[in-house]
Amino acid sequence: MYKLVLIRHGESTWNLENRFTGWTDVDLTPTGVSQAMSAGKLLKAEGWDFDIAFTSVLKRAIHTLWYTLDEMDRTWLPVVKDWRLNERHYGGLQGLNKADMAKQYGDEQVLVWRRSYDTPPPALEATDPRSERGDRRYAALSPEQIPLTECLKDTVARVMPFWNEVLAPTILRGQRVVIAAHGNSIRALVKYLDNIGDNDIVGVNIPNGIPLVYELDANLKPIKSYYLGDAEAAARAAAAVANQGKA
Amino acid sequence: MYKLVLIRHGESTWNLENRFTGWTDVDLTPTGVSQAMSAGKLLKAEGWDFDIAFTSVLKRAIHTLWYTLDEMDRTWLPVVKDWRLNERHYGGLQGLNKADMAKQYGDEQVLVWRRSYDTPPPALEATDPRSERGDRRYAALSPEQIPLTECLKDTVARVMPFWNEVLAPTILRGQRVVIAAHGNSIRALVKYLDNIGDNDIVGVNIPNGIPLVYELDANLKPIKSYYLGDAEAAARAAAAVANQGKA
Repeated sequence: MYKLVLIRHGESTWNLENRFTGWTDVDLTPTGVSQAMSAGKLLKAEGWDFDIAFTSVLKRAIHTLWYTLDEMDRTWLPVVKDWRLNERHYGGLQGLNKADMAKQYGDEQVLVWRRSYDTPPPALEATDPRSERGDRRYAALSPEQIPLTECLKDTVARVMPFWNEVLAPTILRGQRVVIAAHGNSIRALVKYLDNIGDNDIVGVNIPNGIPLVYELDANLKPIKSYYLGDAEAAARAAAAVANQGKA
Repeated sequence: MYKLVLIRHGESTWNLENRFTGWTDVDLTPTGVSQAMSAGKLLKAEGWDFDIAFTSVLKRAIHTLWYTLDEMDRTWLPVVKDWRLNERHYGGLQGLNKADMAKQYGDEQVLVWRRSYDTPPPALEATDPRSERGDRRYAALSPEQIPLTECLKDTVARVMPFWNEVLAPTILRGQRVVIAAHGNSIRALVKYLDNIGDNDIVGVNIPNGIPLVYELDANLKPIKSYYLGDAEAAARAAAAVANQGKA
Protein backbone atom coordinates (compact mmCIF):
# COMPACT_ATOMS: atom_id res chain seq x y z
CA MET A 1 0.00 0.00 0.00
CA TYR A 2 1.15 3.51 -0.83
CA LYS A 3 0.39 6.84 0.78
CA LEU A 4 0.28 10.20 -0.92
CA VAL A 5 -0.12 13.57 0.81
CA LEU A 6 -1.56 16.60 -0.98
CA ILE A 7 -1.44 20.08 0.54
CA ARG A 8 -3.11 23.13 -0.93
CA HIS A 9 -0.98 26.23 -0.26
CA GLY A 10 -1.76 28.36 2.80
CA GLU A 11 -3.82 31.53 2.50
CA SER A 12 -2.37 33.89 -0.11
CA THR A 13 -2.65 37.67 -0.25
CA TRP A 14 -5.24 37.33 -3.02
CA ASN A 15 -7.18 34.64 -1.16
CA LEU A 16 -7.42 37.24 1.60
CA GLU A 17 -8.47 39.95 -0.85
CA ASN A 18 -10.90 37.47 -2.50
CA ARG A 19 -9.34 37.99 -5.92
CA PHE A 20 -9.01 35.49 -8.73
CA THR A 21 -5.35 34.48 -8.74
CA GLY A 22 -4.63 31.72 -11.25
CA TRP A 23 -1.02 31.93 -12.42
CA THR A 24 -0.39 35.32 -10.79
CA ASP A 25 2.54 34.73 -8.44
CA VAL A 26 1.29 36.16 -5.13
CA ASP A 27 2.82 35.25 -1.79
CA LEU A 28 1.40 33.78 1.42
CA THR A 29 -0.16 35.95 4.12
CA PRO A 30 1.09 35.52 7.72
CA THR A 31 -1.98 33.29 8.20
CA GLY A 32 -0.87 31.26 5.18
CA VAL A 33 2.62 30.86 6.65
CA SER A 34 1.09 29.75 9.91
CA GLN A 35 -1.16 27.23 8.10
CA ALA A 36 1.87 25.77 6.32
CA MET A 37 3.77 25.48 9.60
CA SER A 38 0.74 23.84 11.23
CA ALA A 39 0.63 21.31 8.39
CA GLY A 40 4.28 20.47 9.04
CA LYS A 41 3.80 20.20 12.79
CA LEU A 42 0.80 17.93 12.31
CA LEU A 43 2.64 15.68 9.84
CA LYS A 44 5.62 15.46 12.18
CA ALA A 45 3.48 14.82 15.27
CA GLU A 46 1.68 11.99 13.47
CA GLY A 47 4.95 10.40 12.36
CA TRP A 48 4.74 11.14 8.63
CA ASP A 49 7.87 11.25 6.56
CA PHE A 50 8.67 11.69 2.89
CA ASP A 51 11.36 10.89 0.34
CA ILE A 52 10.58 13.54 -2.26
CA ALA A 53 8.38 16.61 -2.61
CA PHE A 54 6.67 18.16 -5.62
CA THR A 55 5.31 21.64 -6.06
CA SER A 56 4.36 24.17 -8.72
CA VAL A 57 6.48 27.09 -9.92
CA LEU A 58 4.30 29.54 -7.95
CA LYS A 59 5.65 30.88 -4.68
CA ARG A 60 2.51 30.40 -2.58
CA ALA A 61 2.90 26.64 -3.11
CA ILE A 62 6.71 26.63 -2.95
CA HIS A 63 6.74 28.60 0.31
CA THR A 64 4.01 26.38 1.76
CA LEU A 65 6.24 23.41 1.03
CA TRP A 66 9.25 25.18 2.61
CA TYR A 67 7.46 25.92 5.87
CA THR A 68 5.90 22.47 6.01
CA LEU A 69 9.22 20.69 5.41
CA ASP A 70 11.06 23.00 7.79
CA GLU A 71 8.74 22.05 10.64
CA MET A 72 9.44 18.40 9.79
CA ASP A 73 13.21 19.04 9.66
CA ARG A 74 13.14 17.83 6.06
CA THR A 75 14.28 20.85 4.06
CA TRP A 76 17.07 18.66 2.67
CA LEU A 77 14.60 16.51 0.74
CA PRO A 78 14.70 16.73 -3.06
CA VAL A 79 12.02 19.11 -4.35
CA VAL A 80 10.74 19.02 -7.93
CA LYS A 81 8.99 22.17 -9.18
CA ASP A 82 6.80 21.81 -12.26
CA TRP A 83 4.44 24.23 -13.99
CA ARG A 84 1.96 21.41 -14.56
CA LEU A 85 1.09 21.61 -10.85
CA ASN A 86 0.25 25.32 -11.18
CA GLU A 87 -3.19 26.64 -10.29
CA ARG A 88 -5.80 26.71 -13.04
CA HIS A 89 -5.21 29.77 -15.21
CA TYR A 90 -8.00 32.24 -14.54
CA GLY A 91 -7.70 34.17 -17.81
CA GLY A 92 -9.10 37.68 -17.86
CA LEU A 93 -10.41 37.29 -14.31
CA GLN A 94 -6.89 37.20 -12.83
CA GLY A 95 -6.61 40.04 -10.35
CA LEU A 96 -10.35 40.80 -10.18
CA ASN A 97 -12.41 40.52 -7.00
CA LYS A 98 -14.68 37.46 -6.79
CA ALA A 99 -17.50 39.25 -4.96
CA ASP A 100 -17.33 42.27 -7.31
CA MET A 101 -17.62 39.94 -10.27
CA ALA A 102 -20.59 38.23 -8.59
CA LYS A 103 -22.29 41.61 -8.11
CA GLN A 104 -21.61 42.52 -11.73
CA TYR A 105 -22.35 39.20 -13.46
CA GLY A 106 -24.37 37.32 -10.83
CA ASP A 107 -23.47 34.46 -8.50
CA GLU A 108 -24.37 31.91 -11.14
CA GLN A 109 -22.00 33.25 -13.79
CA VAL A 110 -19.17 33.39 -11.27
CA LEU A 111 -19.92 29.83 -10.16
CA VAL A 112 -19.68 28.78 -13.82
CA TRP A 113 -16.31 30.53 -14.16
CA ARG A 114 -15.07 29.08 -10.88
CA ARG A 115 -16.42 25.60 -11.07
CA SER A 116 -17.67 24.67 -14.52
CA TYR A 117 -15.73 21.68 -15.75
CA ASP A 118 -15.44 22.76 -19.37
CA THR A 119 -16.31 26.46 -19.63
CA PRO A 120 -13.21 28.62 -19.20
CA PRO A 121 -13.35 32.25 -18.04
CA PRO A 122 -12.79 34.89 -20.75
CA ALA A 123 -9.24 34.55 -22.12
CA LEU A 124 -6.45 37.05 -21.53
CA GLU A 125 -5.09 38.76 -24.60
CA ALA A 126 -1.61 37.38 -25.31
CA THR A 127 -0.38 40.98 -25.13
CA ASP A 128 -2.07 41.64 -21.76
CA PRO A 129 0.57 42.61 -19.19
CA ARG A 130 -1.00 39.98 -16.94
CA SER A 131 -0.11 37.21 -19.44
CA GLU A 132 2.74 34.91 -18.42
CA ARG A 133 3.96 34.49 -22.01
CA GLY A 134 6.96 36.74 -21.34
CA ASP A 135 7.80 35.13 -17.99
CA ARG A 136 11.22 33.47 -18.02
CA ARG A 137 10.08 30.60 -15.83
CA TYR A 138 7.97 29.34 -18.74
CA ALA A 139 10.67 29.88 -21.37
CA ALA A 140 11.01 26.15 -22.04
CA LEU A 141 7.34 25.96 -23.09
CA SER A 142 5.93 26.82 -26.49
CA PRO A 143 3.66 29.90 -26.42
CA GLU A 144 0.68 27.61 -27.04
CA GLN A 145 1.49 25.64 -23.90
CA ILE A 146 1.19 28.79 -21.78
CA PRO A 147 -2.54 29.19 -21.28
CA LEU A 148 -4.49 32.43 -21.66
CA THR A 149 -7.33 30.86 -19.69
CA GLU A 150 -8.28 27.39 -18.47
CA CYS A 151 -11.33 25.48 -17.37
CA LEU A 152 -10.75 22.56 -15.00
CA LYS A 153 -10.79 20.22 -17.98
CA ASP A 154 -7.76 22.08 -19.35
CA THR A 155 -6.01 21.84 -16.00
CA VAL A 156 -6.73 18.09 -15.89
CA ALA A 157 -5.23 17.82 -19.39
CA ARG A 158 -1.83 19.05 -18.12
CA VAL A 159 -1.92 17.57 -14.60
CA MET A 160 -2.64 14.03 -15.80
CA PRO A 161 0.50 13.65 -17.96
CA PHE A 162 2.50 14.80 -14.94
CA TRP A 163 0.74 12.19 -12.81
CA ASN A 164 1.32 9.46 -15.38
CA GLU A 165 4.89 10.33 -16.33
CA VAL A 166 6.29 11.53 -13.01
CA LEU A 167 4.13 11.18 -9.90
CA ALA A 168 2.72 7.67 -10.35
CA PRO A 169 6.09 6.09 -11.29
CA THR A 170 7.71 7.83 -8.30
CA ILE A 171 5.06 6.47 -5.91
CA LEU A 172 5.30 2.99 -7.45
CA ARG A 173 9.08 3.03 -6.86
CA GLY A 174 8.21 3.25 -3.16
CA GLN A 175 9.04 6.91 -2.72
CA ARG A 176 6.88 8.65 -0.14
CA VAL A 177 5.51 11.69 -1.94
CA VAL A 178 4.16 15.02 -0.67
CA ILE A 179 2.73 17.54 -3.12
CA ALA A 180 2.18 21.21 -2.28
CA ALA A 181 -0.03 22.65 -4.97
CA HIS A 182 -3.24 24.58 -5.65
CA GLY A 183 -7.01 24.27 -5.34
CA ASN A 184 -7.54 23.23 -8.92
CA SER A 185 -4.41 21.20 -9.62
CA ILE A 186 -5.32 19.21 -6.50
CA ARG A 187 -8.96 18.96 -7.64
CA ALA A 188 -7.65 17.55 -10.94
CA LEU A 189 -5.80 14.82 -9.03
CA VAL A 190 -8.76 14.18 -6.70
CA LYS A 191 -11.12 13.92 -9.68
CA TYR A 192 -8.89 11.29 -11.25
CA LEU A 193 -8.10 9.34 -8.09
CA ASP A 194 -11.70 9.26 -6.82
CA ASN A 195 -13.13 8.93 -10.32
CA ILE A 196 -15.46 11.91 -9.82
CA GLY A 197 -17.73 12.84 -12.72
CA ASP A 198 -17.46 16.11 -14.63
CA ASN A 199 -20.65 17.42 -12.99
CA ASP A 200 -19.84 16.31 -9.45
CA ILE A 201 -16.36 17.82 -9.20
CA VAL A 202 -18.03 21.26 -8.88
CA GLY A 203 -18.91 20.39 -5.27
CA VAL A 204 -15.35 19.49 -4.25
CA ASN A 205 -13.46 22.27 -2.44
CA ILE A 206 -9.93 21.96 -1.09
CA PRO A 207 -9.13 23.90 2.10
CA ASN A 208 -5.83 25.79 2.49
CA GLY A 209 -2.93 24.15 4.30
CA ILE A 210 -4.57 20.94 5.54
CA PRO A 211 -2.80 17.71 4.52
CA LEU A 212 -5.07 15.46 2.44
CA VAL A 213 -3.97 11.83 2.63
CA TYR A 214 -4.65 9.19 0.00
CA GLU A 215 -3.99 5.56 0.84
CA LEU A 216 -3.52 3.76 -2.47
CA ASP A 217 -3.46 0.09 -3.44
CA ALA A 218 -0.86 -1.60 -5.62
CA ASN A 219 -2.55 -0.13 -8.73
CA LEU A 220 -2.71 3.32 -7.12
CA LYS A 221 -6.47 3.06 -6.66
CA PRO A 222 -7.63 4.79 -3.45
CA ILE A 223 -8.42 2.61 -0.45
CA LYS A 224 -9.39 5.69 1.51
CA SER A 225 -8.68 9.38 1.78
CA TYR A 226 -8.94 11.84 4.66
CA TYR A 227 -7.78 15.19 5.95
CA LEU A 228 -5.25 15.08 8.79
CA GLY A 229 -6.18 16.77 12.04
CA ASP A 230 -9.57 18.18 12.97
CA ALA A 231 -12.10 16.85 10.41
CA GLU A 232 -14.71 19.49 11.27
CA ALA A 233 -12.19 22.31 10.83
CA ALA A 234 -11.28 20.90 7.39
CA ALA A 235 -14.97 20.76 6.42
CA ARG A 236 -15.55 24.35 7.59
CA ALA A 237 -12.49 25.51 5.63
CA ALA A 238 -13.70 23.72 2.49
CA ALA A 239 -17.15 25.33 2.87
CA ALA A 240 -15.51 28.75 3.16
CA VAL A 241 -13.73 28.11 -0.17
CA ALA A 242 -17.08 27.21 -1.76
CA ASN A 243 -18.59 30.52 -0.58
CA GLN A 244 -15.84 32.81 -1.91
CA GLY A 245 -17.60 33.53 -5.19
CA LYS A 246 -20.84 34.85 -3.75
CA ALA A 247 -21.90 38.50 -3.82
CA MET B 1 32.71 33.80 -20.77
CA TYR B 2 30.85 32.26 -17.85
CA LYS B 3 29.97 33.59 -14.43
CA LEU B 4 29.61 31.60 -11.25
CA VAL B 5 28.36 32.94 -7.91
CA LEU B 6 29.30 31.31 -4.60
CA ILE B 7 27.62 32.28 -1.33
CA ARG B 8 28.65 31.02 2.08
CA HIS B 9 25.58 30.61 4.30
CA GLY B 10 24.61 33.48 6.61
CA GLU B 11 25.57 33.43 10.29
CA SER B 12 24.41 30.23 11.98
CA THR B 13 23.53 29.72 15.64
CA TRP B 14 26.87 27.94 16.11
CA ASN B 15 28.81 30.64 14.26
CA LEU B 16 27.30 32.99 16.84
CA GLU B 17 28.22 30.66 19.71
CA ASN B 18 31.68 30.18 18.15
CA ARG B 19 31.28 26.41 18.06
CA PHE B 20 32.71 23.94 15.55
CA THR B 21 29.74 22.94 13.38
CA GLY B 22 30.78 20.69 10.50
CA TRP B 23 27.89 18.45 9.49
CA THR B 24 25.75 19.38 12.50
CA ASP B 25 22.54 20.77 11.02
CA VAL B 26 22.11 24.09 12.83
CA ASP B 27 19.91 26.89 11.53
CA LEU B 28 20.58 30.53 10.65
CA THR B 29 20.39 33.28 13.28
CA PRO B 30 18.23 36.35 12.52
CA THR B 31 21.51 38.02 11.43
CA GLY B 32 22.13 35.09 9.09
CA VAL B 33 18.65 35.44 7.59
CA SER B 34 19.28 39.14 7.10
CA GLN B 35 22.67 38.43 5.45
CA ALA B 36 21.01 36.00 3.03
CA MET B 37 18.30 38.54 2.20
CA SER B 38 20.97 41.21 1.66
CA ALA B 39 22.80 38.90 -0.73
CA GLY B 40 19.58 38.47 -2.72
CA LYS B 41 18.85 42.20 -2.74
CA LEU B 42 22.38 42.95 -3.91
CA LEU B 43 22.25 40.34 -6.69
CA LYS B 44 18.88 41.67 -7.83
CA ALA B 45 19.97 45.32 -7.68
CA GLU B 46 23.04 44.52 -9.79
CA GLY B 47 20.97 42.68 -12.38
CA TRP B 48 22.18 39.14 -11.68
CA ASP B 49 20.03 36.21 -12.65
CA PHE B 50 20.40 32.43 -12.57
CA ASP B 51 19.07 29.31 -14.24
CA ILE B 52 19.83 26.76 -11.53
CA ALA B 53 20.96 26.73 -7.92
CA PHE B 54 23.01 24.22 -5.94
CA THR B 55 23.30 23.79 -2.21
CA SER B 56 24.24 21.26 0.43
CA VAL B 57 21.86 19.12 2.48
CA LEU B 58 22.40 21.33 5.54
CA LYS B 59 19.69 23.82 6.43
CA ARG B 60 21.94 26.83 7.03
CA ALA B 61 22.94 26.70 3.36
CA ILE B 62 19.48 25.67 2.09
CA HIS B 63 17.78 28.48 4.00
CA THR B 64 20.40 30.96 2.82
CA LEU B 65 19.58 29.97 -0.73
CA TRP B 66 15.83 30.31 -0.03
CA TYR B 67 16.12 33.84 1.31
CA THR B 68 18.53 34.88 -1.44
CA LEU B 69 16.30 33.52 -4.21
CA ASP B 70 13.17 34.90 -2.59
CA GLU B 71 14.58 38.43 -2.68
CA MET B 72 15.37 37.86 -6.38
CA ASP B 73 11.83 36.51 -7.01
CA ARG B 74 13.46 33.30 -8.19
CA THR B 75 12.19 30.68 -5.76
CA TRP B 76 10.82 28.78 -8.77
CA LEU B 77 14.34 27.98 -10.01
CA PRO B 78 15.44 24.36 -9.89
CA VAL B 79 17.52 23.67 -6.80
CA VAL B 80 19.88 20.69 -6.51
CA LYS B 81 20.89 19.65 -2.98
CA ASP B 82 23.96 17.47 -2.65
CA TRP B 83 25.90 16.25 0.38
CA ARG B 84 29.18 16.83 -1.47
CA LEU B 85 28.66 20.57 -0.92
CA ASN B 86 28.38 20.04 2.86
CA GLU B 87 30.74 21.79 5.24
CA ARG B 88 33.97 19.98 6.12
CA HIS B 89 33.22 17.36 8.79
CA TYR B 90 34.71 18.56 12.05
CA GLY B 91 34.96 15.14 13.72
CA GLY B 92 35.15 15.10 17.50
CA LEU B 93 35.24 18.90 17.61
CA GLN B 94 31.64 19.24 16.39
CA GLY B 95 29.68 21.13 19.03
CA LEU B 96 32.73 22.34 20.97
CA ASN B 97 33.60 26.02 21.46
CA LYS B 98 36.49 27.28 19.33
CA ALA B 99 37.84 29.67 21.97
CA ASP B 100 37.52 27.03 24.73
CA MET B 101 39.51 24.61 22.59
CA ALA B 102 42.11 27.32 22.00
CA LYS B 103 42.44 27.89 25.76
CA GLN B 104 42.75 24.15 26.35
CA TYR B 105 44.99 23.17 23.42
CA GLY B 106 46.51 26.51 22.36
CA ASP B 107 45.82 28.77 19.39
CA GLU B 108 48.28 26.89 17.25
CA GLN B 109 46.63 23.48 17.65
CA VAL B 110 43.23 24.97 16.92
CA LEU B 111 44.62 26.67 13.81
CA VAL B 112 45.95 23.30 12.69
CA TRP B 113 42.51 21.71 13.20
CA ARG B 114 40.77 24.60 11.51
CA ARG B 115 43.11 25.26 8.65
CA SER B 116 45.67 22.51 8.11
CA TYR B 117 45.26 21.11 4.63
CA ASP B 118 45.87 17.48 5.49
CA THR B 119 45.61 17.05 9.27
CA PRO B 120 42.04 16.24 10.29
CA PRO B 121 40.65 16.91 13.78
CA PRO B 122 40.23 13.86 16.05
CA ALA B 123 37.62 11.53 14.53
CA LEU B 124 34.18 10.91 15.97
CA GLU B 125 33.46 7.36 17.09
CA ALA B 126 31.01 5.80 14.60
CA THR B 127 28.73 5.15 17.59
CA ASP B 128 28.92 8.76 18.83
CA PRO B 129 25.42 10.24 18.92
CA ARG B 130 26.91 13.18 16.99
CA SER B 131 27.78 10.91 14.04
CA GLU B 132 25.60 11.27 10.95
CA ARG B 133 25.83 7.57 10.08
CA GLY B 134 22.23 6.99 11.22
CA ASP B 135 20.88 10.09 9.48
CA ARG B 136 18.33 9.22 6.80
CA ARG B 137 19.51 11.99 4.51
CA TYR B 138 22.75 10.05 3.95
CA ALA B 139 21.04 6.68 3.52
CA ALA B 140 22.12 6.41 -0.12
CA LEU B 141 25.80 6.57 0.90
CA SER B 142 27.92 3.69 2.10
CA PRO B 143 28.97 4.08 5.77
CA GLU B 144 32.54 4.69 4.58
CA GLN B 145 31.39 7.66 2.51
CA ILE B 146 29.97 9.35 5.63
CA PRO B 147 33.02 10.92 7.26
CA LEU B 148 33.88 10.74 10.95
CA THR B 149 36.27 13.67 10.44
CA GLU B 150 37.76 15.54 7.52
CA CYS B 151 40.71 17.77 6.74
CA LEU B 152 40.31 20.19 3.84
CA LYS B 153 42.04 17.67 1.58
CA ASP B 154 39.23 15.22 2.32
CA THR B 155 36.63 17.87 1.56
CA VAL B 156 38.38 18.66 -1.73
CA ALA B 157 38.29 14.93 -2.54
CA ARG B 158 34.48 14.92 -2.47
CA VAL B 159 33.82 18.45 -3.79
CA MET B 160 35.97 17.99 -6.91
CA PRO B 161 34.01 15.04 -8.34
CA PHE B 162 30.86 17.13 -7.88
CA TRP B 163 32.53 20.00 -9.72
CA ASN B 164 33.71 17.75 -12.53
CA GLU B 165 30.57 15.64 -12.89
CA VAL B 166 27.84 18.19 -12.18
CA LEU B 167 28.85 21.83 -11.75
CA ALA B 168 31.34 22.28 -14.60
CA PRO B 169 29.13 20.56 -17.23
CA THR B 170 26.16 22.66 -16.07
CA ILE B 171 28.14 25.89 -16.43
CA LEU B 172 29.50 24.79 -19.82
CA ARG B 173 25.94 24.20 -21.01
CA GLY B 174 25.42 27.92 -20.47
CA GLN B 175 23.39 27.62 -17.29
CA ARG B 176 23.94 30.51 -14.89
CA VAL B 177 24.82 28.86 -11.59
CA VAL B 178 24.58 30.05 -7.98
CA ILE B 179 25.89 27.86 -5.17
CA ALA B 180 24.97 28.38 -1.51
CA ALA B 181 27.41 26.33 0.54
CA HIS B 182 29.89 26.42 3.41
CA GLY B 183 33.22 27.93 4.37
CA ASN B 184 35.23 24.84 3.50
CA SER B 185 33.29 23.47 0.54
CA ILE B 186 33.67 26.93 -0.99
CA ARG B 187 37.38 27.00 -0.03
CA ALA B 188 37.74 23.68 -1.85
CA LEU B 189 36.31 25.26 -5.01
CA VAL B 190 38.37 28.45 -4.60
CA LYS B 191 41.55 26.39 -4.11
CA TYR B 192 40.89 24.55 -7.35
CA LEU B 193 39.72 27.54 -9.40
CA ASP B 194 42.53 29.86 -8.27
CA ASN B 195 45.08 27.04 -8.18
CA ILE B 196 46.06 27.85 -4.58
CA GLY B 197 48.75 25.71 -2.98
CA ASP B 198 48.15 23.40 -0.03
CA ASN B 199 50.05 25.77 2.28
CA ASP B 200 48.50 29.01 1.04
CA ILE B 201 44.86 27.97 1.32
CA VAL B 202 45.16 28.37 5.13
CA GLY B 203 45.03 32.14 4.64
CA VAL B 204 41.79 32.12 2.63
CA ASN B 205 38.67 32.90 4.66
CA ILE B 206 35.15 33.13 3.23
CA PRO B 207 32.78 35.64 4.85
CA ASN B 208 29.13 34.76 5.54
CA GLY B 209 26.46 35.77 3.07
CA ILE B 210 28.49 37.85 0.60
CA PRO B 211 28.24 36.75 -3.06
CA LEU B 212 31.64 35.76 -4.46
CA VAL B 213 31.72 36.06 -8.24
CA TYR B 214 34.01 34.11 -10.57
CA GLU B 215 34.27 35.16 -14.19
CA LEU B 216 35.48 32.11 -16.10
CA ASP B 217 36.86 31.64 -19.59
CA ALA B 218 35.80 28.97 -22.09
CA ASN B 219 37.90 26.39 -20.19
CA LEU B 220 36.44 27.52 -16.85
CA LYS B 221 39.71 29.17 -15.86
CA PRO B 222 39.16 32.32 -13.78
CA ILE B 223 39.54 35.68 -15.52
CA LYS B 224 38.83 37.44 -12.27
CA SER B 225 36.95 37.01 -9.00
CA TYR B 226 35.49 39.51 -6.56
CA TYR B 227 32.98 39.95 -3.77
CA LEU B 228 29.83 41.85 -4.65
CA GLY B 229 29.04 45.01 -2.75
CA ASP B 230 31.32 46.75 -0.25
CA ALA B 231 34.84 45.28 -0.71
CA GLU B 232 36.06 46.57 2.67
CA ALA B 233 33.11 45.04 4.47
CA ALA B 234 33.86 41.70 2.79
CA ALA B 235 37.52 41.93 3.86
CA ARG B 236 36.55 42.75 7.47
CA ALA B 237 34.09 39.83 7.51
CA ALA B 238 36.78 37.46 6.17
CA ALA B 239 39.24 38.67 8.84
CA ALA B 240 36.62 38.01 11.53
CA VAL B 241 36.32 34.41 10.29
CA ALA B 242 40.11 34.05 10.52
CA ASN B 243 40.06 35.19 14.17
CA GLN B 244 37.34 32.80 15.37
CA GLY B 245 39.78 30.16 16.59
CA LYS B 246 41.78 32.36 18.93
CA ALA B 247 41.60 32.16 22.70
